[in-house]
Amino acid sequence: MTVINRMTNNSPQEGLSGRQIMYDEDGKPCRSCNTLLDFQYVTGKITNGLKNLSSNATLANTAAATATSQDLIPGSRTYTKVDPPDVEQLGRSSWTLLHAAAANYPVKPSDEQKGEMKQFLNIFSHIYPCNWCAKDFEKYIRENAPKIESREELGRWMCEAHNKVNTKLRKPKFDCNFWGKRWKDGWDE
Amino acid sequence: MTVINRMTNNSPQEGLSGRQIMYDEDGKPCRSCNTLLDFQYVTGKITNGLKNLSSNATLANTAAATATSQDLIPGSRTYTKVDPPDVEQLGRSSWTLLHAAAANYPVKPSDEQKGEMKQFLNIFSHIYPCNWCAKDFEKYIRENAPKIESREELGRWMCEAHNKVNTKLRKPKFDCNFWGKRWKDGWDE
Repeated sequence: MTVINRMTNNSPQEGLSGRQIMYDEDGKPCRSCNTLLDFQYVTGKITNGLKNLSSNATLANTAAATATSQDLIPGSRTYTKVDPPDVEQLGRSSWTLLHAAAANYPVKPSDEQKGEMKQFLNIFSHIYPCNWCAKDFEKYIRENAPKIESREELGRWMCEAHNKVNTKLRKPKFDCNFWGKRWKDGWDE
Repeated sequence: MTVINRMTNNSPQEGLSGRQIMYDEDGKPCRSCNTLLDFQYVTGKITNGLKNLSSNATLANTAAATATSQDLIPGSRTYTKVDPPDVEQLGRSSWTLLHAAAANYPVKPSDEQKGEMKQFLNIFSHIYPCNWCAKDFEKYIRENAPKIESREELGRWMCEAHNKVNTKLRKPKFDCNFWGKRWKDGWDE
């Protein structure tokens, strides 16, 4: 699916978060490419009036509260109507999997294991559900080939790839000397 | 890494959750194969005395409270010492990615896209950081080949694969007629 930055008469270009709103090819806002807050704003679930609130935390809480309907799915006594993940939840989930996969990668991988990890990251950059994030990752691994010779190499490479995204999102960098404690050993040992 | 079910003189076979404790090849408890509660129990962070508490929720809360140290990582003003994901966090994260990937899979995929999705799931079953979960998934896709002809097919296949795991974990099944609302469209449309 191609995601475009689009502005029509009725489509806001910027969300409440201040970020650009991303649209799918069919002109609908892209769920997995925007934050929940912005998605709700652009689909009319949150009005512009909220923009006057001073605290971003308040906005986020309001969004979370309206997003999680407690209604049960028809026929179920346990599953509630949870909405699809937004770009942030998707990001957190995927980094968790990727870092943990690196942390459990063999210390001395076989040629087959190296090939599979390389291919996994390559395909990941094609199928990742946020299209613009996927393109960014694809470009990153083209310019910074995944280091797959050992667990230590891969764990550090993944940390650096994540930091590249952190920088882009204006988040602080993680000190990659601690990647093993964060994703494999924990902090007590 | 091969994960084994092991019982030595000092290694408990069963955790506080009642589940079997999984150990790595080196004899250490496997972080990504056990729940946080059981991992903390078997590594001595939680004593057996807690077993007398009546509520599982209480146990889980105690575990969460002790797990999240508020200490900052040396040199960082923002990153706290978060421990590596346990088997449950890893499961939730990975299903989020897999379902969202299915929801964003093309309605009419090319042969190349079909091949890549098939290969992605295949490699996923080799590199998934919880070894026994990975083996289960590998067996499942061997016996139930991923349906990759269309988004609808793949979304439903993924839902059924997840339900297979739900059943094994004695969780209720999700009604796969709702997979699209849960992972793509949301519940409001």
